[in-house]
Amino acid sequence: MASDSPPAADPALFDTIVNLSKRRGFAFPSAEIYGGFRSTYDYGPVGVLLLRNVKDAWWREMVQRRHDVVGLDAAILSPPAVWEASGHLESFTDPLVDCTSCKERFRLDKLEDPDTCPSCGAKGSFTEARQFNLMFSTQAGPVAGSGATAYLRPETAQGMFVDFAQVMTAARKKPPFGIAQVGKSFRNEITPGNFVFRTREFEQMEMEFFVPPDEAEEWYGYWCRERFQWYLDLGMPEDRLRLRPHDDDELSHYSSGTSDVEFLFPWGWDELEGIANRGDYDLSAHAAASGEKLDYFDQASNVRYTPHVIEPAAGVTRAAFAFLLAAYDEEEVRGETRVVLRLHPRLAPYKVAVLPLSKKPELTGPARAVFASLADRFMCDYDETQAIGRRYRRQDELGTPLCVTFDFDSVDDGAVTLRDRDTMEQERVPIEGLADVVADRLGL
Amino acid sequence: MASDSPPAADPALFDTIVNLSKRRGFAFPSAEIYGGFRSTYDYGPVGVLLLRNVKDAWWREMVQRRHDVVGLDAAILSPPAVWEASGHLESFTDPLVDCTSCKERFRLDKLEDPDTCPSCGAKGSFTEARQFNLMFSTQAGPVAGSGATAYLRPETAQGMFVDFAQVMTAARKKPPFGIAQVGKSFRNEITPGNFVFRTREFEQMEMEFFVPPDEAEEWYGYWCRERFQWYLDLGMPEDRLRLRPHDDDELSHYSSGTSDVEFLFPWGWDELEGIANRGDYDLSAHAAASGEKLDYFDQASNVRYTPHVIEPAAGVTRAAFAFLLAAYDEEEVRGETRVVLRLHPRLAPYKVAVLPLSKKPELTGPARAVFASLADRFMCDYDETQAIGRRYRRQDELGTPLCVTFDFDSVDDGAVTLRDRDTMEQERVPIEGLADVVADRLGL
Repeated sequence: MASDSPPAADPALFDTIVNLSKRRGFAFPSAEIYGGFRSTYDYGPVGVLLLRNVKDAWWREMVQRRHDVVGLDAAILSPPAVWEASGHLESFTDPLVDCTSCKERFRLDKLEDPDTCPSCGAKGSFTEARQFNLMFSTQAGPVAGSGATAYLRPETAQGMFVDFAQVMTAARKKPPFGIAQVGKSFRNEITPGNFVFRTREFEQMEMEFFVPPDEAEEWYGYWCRERFQWYLDLGMPEDRLRLRPHDDDELSHYSSGTSDVEFLFPWGWDELEGIANRGDYDLSAHAAASGEKLDYFDQASNVRYTPHVIEPAAGVTRAAFAFLLAAYDEEEVRGETRVVLRLHPRLAPYKVAVLPLSKKPELTGPARAVFASLADRFMCDYDETQAIGRRYRRQDELGTPLCVTFDFDSVDDGAVTLRDRDTMEQERVPIEGLADVVADRLGL
Repeated sequence: MASDSPPAADPALFDTIVNLSKRRGFAFPSAEIYGGFRSTYDYGPVGVLLLRNVKDAWWREMVQRRHDVVGLDAAILSPPAVWEASGHLESFTDPLVDCTSCKERFRLDKLEDPDTCPSCGAKGSFTEARQFNLMFSTQAGPVAGSGATAYLRPETAQGMFVDFAQVMTAARKKPPFGIAQVGKSFRNEITPGNFVFRTREFEQMEMEFFVPPDEAEEWYGYWCRERFQWYLDLGMPEDRLRLRPHDDDELSHYSSGTSDVEFLFPWGWDELEGIANRGDYDLSAHAAASGEKLDYFDQASNVRYTPHVIEPAAGVTRAAFAFLLAAYDEEEVRGETRVVLRLHPRLAPYKVAVLPLSKKPELTGPARAVFASLADRFMCDYDETQAIGRRYRRQDELGTPLCVTFDFDSVDDGAVTLRDRDTMEQERVPIEGLADVVADRLGL
């Protein structure tokens, strides 16, 4: 993948990854036997593992290894009061227009020519724009009416603000400290698209870091650097990643600084994660709306203050998609094209594949025992069908860093062949102690 | 906790656990600053870790360590076609009646006297019963109308049936094999209650195991034993757990056998998990509705068949609740009551707490270095406030198996005090190699 020229967007790669995702079980449209459903996707056997690994890598770095961040798992269903205070009920909207001629509906701000319908070509056929709220609503409880309206959260962040005081007290933390959450969010996007990049149901990894007001600027810089480095540490190539500070006219009215971590997608640079300095906007809004004290009294300085918030907010699904795109590689091997996902070992769905050379019981029996010993520590695949070469190629396409082949010699010499995904080099390794060798090779 | 007499339901324990959960950050009502919301709960810093540990223990046993089960992460938002085929649109209902006198609404099948309103005492005041569907619905996309109706899935299971063929092909599996999923589901319960036991938003761990029809009975027995054992292996006391086969009149019309794993809750025996022999009901229903082939052609025997399904379906949140209840213990220590959660080390939110004896920088600095070395491998807490005795008690209430105390001697002798949650015994251990000692003690 190394190259001397600066990278360019690669539109063909998009279809390649979408096809590989479906064929190998990373991701495919939901309810496909019923014709699919509104840009929702299901994650297959390797997709669910990739998502888990992305989330675990984030959790490990953002929660487990830090003494100043704790976790939260807040509910998806939430009452109007939360979204009224946060401003989502009023402003989380897109402007929609209808074409009175063909009845199609469009986002006004996405129309190239706001006077001509791009569908039927009619001129001046649009209705007045009306604001369409992007939150999904439903009714909770058996009684209809406004008291029972619930919204599916459009972001996980509000949970951390609403629970701020409760969490700070229970966890015995004080600013600077953070609350982190991984979970599903829902937005009724007018124009979902680009595979799993923009979907109505998606998963987020968000952290709200509460700091003394005079430390906000410093922590904002800190988190921009930390979050950018996280992608690099997981193998993202430096020339496909950039940190882009928002222009003044892009900033939310409450933000004094926002930077996006962007990845070079097949359609160009686009957002993986935003890091925002949100000031005291959120805590103040919820304190005012609820009448509760959402502040901190610092005994040392005898000062009560509302913490400012630095928010690194990342998308799980689009991060996984970006890692897939960055990992994809093709190379010529003995006149054939080898497809290989050069995923970081921490992200690879399977760390090892155990492959008996034949389906004969004298091989599959002990091969399954090898699988059992490795699967106790790592996520492993087991595959006994087809020629060994084809099985290697399949594992290459799944990004599996190591293959263990149990052959007829293994029965006698108690050793297996360990094959490396990237170099395709093979080495004979004793079964005794194999798990340690694997852990060592993968740096896990 | 050991006792010679058979256990009895313990209603007082319910309040104890609810209070501890809120105080220590396991679980508390959602949006509490706005008065809470319809029996939804948020999981705080230790609650989210407990849930993660329950799910990881399930995933490890049901997916990672098996060569015959793969994972899936299907969408929550799903189209009516899925729920029409599954039968949920027609039959996933409760009978509701309204009292014409006081306007209260009730589940007919839960009324003690179907003629008298339990709220206002009116007789013969109920309306005719009408069927109330328990699925939450919403509208996807900016166009209202039946084509855009989406349901929040009331169970994860249908994802495994709808994606059966896609997953089997991509993962190169054949019956007997399983598809497993962990995720949120939603049911518009008329009468949620018992803390996190019955909530409108909840999390499931479900696995559909597809088998040749003539092996179904054998696999049903196998999964009943496996799933029962899983709870025991995680420390659930044998006398509070039972496997209860359904009577014939409890069975769904499509099930030829269902057993519940039940736990002795404060209100009596109640369900943790159901293991059902579902026959070919689900795959046949979706094949008929979609026109797709959801079957398997066995080349060895030259026979095409629709696999039968064994389904172990567990609740994450109620399992976590049951583990908390079972782990709770009080004992007298030097005239004081010590509360301790005797959680299995695999389930304990924090494996270790690192506690500098004082807040002086010469202790907190190196104590944080000890934290960093342990946190690389385990989820650890760090706490430097209050007297050490109170901090030990707090960790006992969180179920932390080990505390590491860094004191003034530690600076010189490079050793720390390791305190055991259950025995309260303390031992001096070198900092060098501490992580290995911890791993060894915890059996992780």
